[in-house]
Parts: sequence; C-alpha cells; structure tokens
Amino acid sequence: MTPRPRKTVTDRRLAGPVRIVGTGLLGTSIGLALTARGVDVSLADTSPSSVALAVDYGAGRRAADGDAPELIVVCVPPDVTAATVAAELAAFPDALVTDVASVKAGPLAELIAADADVSRYIGSHPMAGRERSGAISARADIFIGRPWVIAGHDGISYRRAAAVEQLALDLGAIPLEMSTEEHDRNVALVSHVPQVVASLLATRLTDAPEAAVSLAGQGLRDTTRIASSDPELWVQILSANSGAVVDVLRKYRDDVDSLLAALEDPDARGSRRAIAEALAGGNAGVARIPGKHGQSARFAQLVVIVNDTPGQLARLLTDIGEAGINMEDLRLEHSPGAQIGLAEISVLPEAEERLATELTARGWRISELSA
Amino acid sequence: MTPRPRKTVTDRRLAGPVRIVGTGLLGTSIGLALTARGVDVSLADTSPSSVALAVDYGAGRRAADGDAPELIVVCVPPDVTAATVAAELAAFPDALVTDVASVKAGPLAELIAADADVSRYIGSHPMAGRERSGAISARADIFIGRPWVIAGHDGISYRRAAAVEQLALDLGAIPLEMSTEEHDRNVALVSHVPQVVASLLATRLTDAPEAAVSLAGQGLRDTTRIASSDPELWVQILSANSGAVVDVLRKYRDDVDSLLAALEDPDARGSRRAIAEALAGGNAGVARIPGKHGQSARFAQLVVIVNDTPGQLARLLTDIGEAGINMEDLRLEHSPGAQIGLAEISVLPEAEERLATELTARGWRISELSA
Repeated sequence: MTPRPRKTVTDRRLAGPVRIVGTGLLGTSIGLALTARGVDVSLADTSPSSVALAVDYGAGRRAADGDAPELIVVCVPPDVTAATVAAELAAFPDALVTDVASVKAGPLAELIAADADVSRYIGSHPMAGRERSGAISARADIFIGRPWVIAGHDGISYRRAAAVEQLALDLGAIPLEMSTEEHDRNVALVSHVPQVVASLLATRLTDAPEAAVSLAGQGLRDTTRIASSDPELWVQILSANSGAVVDVLRKYRDDVDSLLAALEDPDARGSRRAIAEALAGGNAGVARIPGKHGQSARFAQLVVIVNDTPGQLARLLTDIGEAGINMEDLRLEHSPGAQIGLAEISVLPEAEERLATELTARGWRISELSA
Repeated sequence: MTPRPRKTVTDRRLAGPVRIVGTGLLGTSIGLALTARGVDVSLADTSPSSVALAVDYGAGRRAADGDAPELIVVCVPPDVTAATVAAELAAFPDALVTDVASVKAGPLAELIAADADVSRYIGSHPMAGRERSGAISARADIFIGRPWVIAGHDGISYRRAAAVEQLALDLGAIPLEMSTEEHDRNVALVSHVPQVVASLLATRLTDAPEAAVSLAGQGLRDTTRIASSDPELWVQILSANSGAVVDVLRKYRDDVDSLLAALEDPDARGSRRAIAEALAGGNAGVARIPGKHGQSARFAQLVVIVNDTPGQLARLLTDIGEAGINMEDLRLEHSPGAQIGLAEISVLPEAEERLATELTARGWRISELSA
C-alpha cells in the first residue's frame, strides 16, 4: 500500500487566473493548492514581507498591474473582510469575489449598505485551518475532506457563483450551500459556542491546585482542547457573530442556571429529575453528531493494552490490517506516570467480535470497556 | 516486540483474603485483578445473579460464613456507599474497609454521624471505569496507570490504611493521598463540572438542523464526547458532591454571564477586552493540564495524510518505528464524506524535524499544521 499520489495538474475545474488577497494560513494554503494544479495565482497583502514569504513558499506570484483574475479570494481577518471585498469589487469590475471569513451575514450586509456590486460577490467558509495561523503553517491539503460552506444570496445568479464551487472541489473540499444567516446560526452552534464553553471551562483551571490537575483524565483533556485557540482571531469571530452566539449561549446559560438550582438543593422535590434530564439531554445531543463518512451510527470500541515503545502500535495495526478489518477510528490514552497506554480502536459493530478473536489469538490484551 | 506478559502471582503486595461488596464494573474488575494475582477473593452483592455472573467471569468465589477478610472493598453506587460500609464494619470487626465511590466527604461524615468505627475505614477513588458499567464490561487492567485517590482522615492510623495503598499498587494504579474535602473539590473541578458543561453543550444540539451538525468538526466532537455518559450514575455523583460542584459551577456561570454581557454589546467600551480575556483565560487553564507521563510540556505535532484503507496506518507507524522515533500520541481525524484521513502524530519537539525528513523520504504527505 503506497501513499496516495498527488493529483495531476490536468484534473482541475477552475481555469483561473485567481487573485488571493491576504497571505495568512488560508490564503497561502489556497495559493499552494491552486499553483500545484497549474492555476496562475497572484498574491496581495497589506504586508509586503508576508507576500514575499508566500511567494517563497510557492503559493503564487506577486500581484502586478494588468492582472485580470477570474476569481478573487479575500482571506483577511473578519474585521476587515467587507472593506477588502468592496475594494476588490471596485478594482476588478469583471471578477467574481469570494471570502473565507468565519462569519457571513455581517460582511454581506455591509457590502449592500455600501452599494457594492454584490452580483459578483458570494461569501464562503472552508471549515479548515483550526487553531493555527500564519503563512508558515500553510499547506495545500488542509481542505481535503472538509466541508466548505458557500453562502448564497439573492443578488447573485447561480451561474455567476460557479467558480467558488469549482475552487472548493479543486481543493478537495465538500461544498455545502446555505444562506448567510443559516451559516452564522449553524457555526454559532457547532463552533463558536463550543469555543466559548471550552475556554470558560479551562479558565476554571488557572488557579487549580496541582493535586487537582494531576487527576485530569481524557474527559477533561477532550473537553478543553480547543481552549488553546488564538484569542485575537476569536475576539473578531465572536464579535462579528455576536447575535447568533448570544442566542445559543443564552439558552445554554439558562440550562446552567436550572441545573445550578437543582444542585443547590439536590434533595428537593424535582431536583433529581432535573439533573437526570440534563444528563439525558446530553446523551441525545451527542448522538446527533455525525461520525466518519457522515454516518450517525456509533462504532464498537475495543481497547487494547500497548507498551509505550516504538513499533508496538505499528505491530498492532499491522495485525488488524492482516485480519482484513477496517479501523474506523483510533485513539491513544496515556496516564501520568504510566509506561503503557490504551489504544481504543473503533470498528463497525459487526466486525467487533472477529477483531477481538483475531487480536487475542495474536497475543494482545484486550480491555473491552464498552458494553 | 511482543505484548507485555501478565504479572506473575508472586509480585503482589496484598496478602488477602479480600471481600468485595458490589459486583458491578469496578468490583468485578478488582476481583479479576486480585484473583489473577492469587489473592482469595470473596464476592457479595444484593443481587444473587450479579454475584453468579462475577463468579463465572473469574472474579472470585461466592462469599460464605466464616470468611475472615483482611480488606473489604465496597463497590456499590454512591447513594448506598455509607450504609454498606457501616454494615461491613459491624459485620467484620477485624477488617479494614474501603470504598471506591466518586465522592468521599459525604460517606465519611455519614459514618461518623452513625458512630461507625472509622478507625478501620478509609475511602478511596480509582480514576478509572469511564462511561461504561456492569460486570459484563469488567476487565482486570482498567486501573493500570490511572490515579487512585486514597482519602485520608484523622480517625485512622497510617499503618492501618496500608492495605489500600497495596491494593492500588497491585492493580497497577498510582496512589495519590488527599483529604476527603480536597478530593471532592478536585474532582468537582476536573471531572464533575466538565461533565455538566459537556452535557449541557450537547443538549443544545438536540434540535439542531441537519445542516448545522453536518458542519461539526473535531472540536465539537471532543468538547461533547463525555456527554454520552450514564445519566443514572451521574445523578448520584452530582447530588452527592453538589456543594463542591455548585462552588465551581457558580464561578463558571458568572463567567458565562460576563461574556454574554460583552457579546450583547460587542462595540461597547471594554467588550472586546472582556472577550479577549475569556479566551486568554482558556489558554492559561488548558496549559495547566499535564500531558503524558506527567509532563506539562507540549509536544510537536506532525499531520500525515493517510488513505482510508486497512494497512495504511500500520505502514505509517512501522515507518515511524523503523526511524527509531517514539510517538507520544496519535490522533486520527476524519470528515464526513472523505475517503482519506489525517493522522496527527505527537513527538518530542527535538524529534519533529527528523520525523518529517524520514517520513517525506518514505513518500508520505505531511501537512504540518502546527507552527
């Protein structure tokens, strides 16, 4: 089995040329991916040294007088997205303009208010990039397999917007269409409020005693992982989508208040039920999150004990591969001070028993924690 | 490299006999581990069929008249822990009694109020077992490498409590001593409030549109994973530790309120700063959580593209092992509809460059998202 070969330059949809404004993580990554596919990419940024860096990385060439882009991709921070899109629409009267900001309704409203030609603008939002930033972290493949929202509106024709969908497909992303308001409500729910919740939970640990954090398990690690995100970027995102975030966060706060009231008097009539329903609501909610390949079904998990030595995990996965079983997911768990770890292997439920048999026969110690 | 051999029966500290009361996940798991080490284990439960199941699994023998246990481990739900411990102290006047409930101050206070002989009782709490329950999920190895809190108090001598520490060590756990109040405050912070926060966040998804959950990324999955926990068990835990949980949850709620106020008027003076400080507090808090082997230092991450086929990941890990590099952690990421995934490999920072070189030389596509 060899790694997947790079796509050749011939299997692209977008003709180009493409102009990219803003050479941070996303702009540079888009430039790298398009350049690798043979598209003529020109790069612009308010910082000349940032453009020079992106050119050095191979994301495209420096923008020049006479450029006639088919598509302009604005990849600047949310705060300045609308103004930059307006300037690009004015400077390039034949180009389609899109942006990649994490909020979509505000910039469109600003553009309409400023009388910009939105018949040539359609916003988009690649769900990629995570907590990292800067051209130095850019890679052509960060969009592969990720959703890429295209936020349609009534001022642009379907045909005119086609290049943005081609862009998403060329970069390996999965285009999803929704309105700007729908997008903002959706990301408030699945991205912005989770960020707030994780950050505020992690904040409680700042003055925790050492003995407390020494008890931290995988649950706490998972629940707070995204709290390490960049505050400056998130101030812009949360401010720009404050309306939708407030709507979700208020309901969440009301739920916290209700649970607090029950916990303040846990023996009062109705308190146990209120606590149970809070937990049951969580069960129902987490079941809504799709797994791999869009499936909602849960996988079966087998937990295998592995030594903390190079090669041990590779041998385990080789054994799984030789058994012809497709692993759906894999997680490692370690505890402070432990020289061994647990590998949690997710497989389709029908493969669970065979996997257990095969691994046991090969001498592995299985700790099947799932019922 | 072969899997670690089972410990032989000779390397144990605890002499026994040991009586286990309550043959659910924890009781049966402790019985399995001790029996494997040659300890005489007797099993009791209010449900005769539950005892029979645990005996069938090999966790010990049915309790009988004339049993003279050195140590009694009470493994019943938090609600009935104190009453069960009191009954065991009275029935076995020479035995040391411990329990494994997730809360520690309440049961001790109840025992003292009931005039039980607490000079022979010391509570403990193995940080193991996770969201699963029942003898059917029991395994001898679930304690390996996990913290095991021993909640000391003034009514018992150090020498008298030694058997509980021996128990923890024999099961492969790491004993940590703290007072009952300290334990309850600590687990409220690192376990009980994170459970509440995750459950209430996931609750927001119950009536989410399909388009919203289709945008879910790894961040949402991580933040809500423990929301799938058993509501019945958690009602008992949260009720029994309501005081400590309320203390932490009130501060958290106040933080949510402050952030809500800032988001309701993000352009007001001070709002941006309040939002930024909420995010920065999360950065500081998450940095407090120890990594593997108790280290606080962050690892370097390399992200490698892997095909979604059996054997592909094994080949990657074989390549890493052959390069002689120790992998500190591994995560897989998938997106809906994608036929390939990303493997995030954590290594010590000094190994990062060599790993990238070795993998690239072997044809792997590296997407180093970390700066």
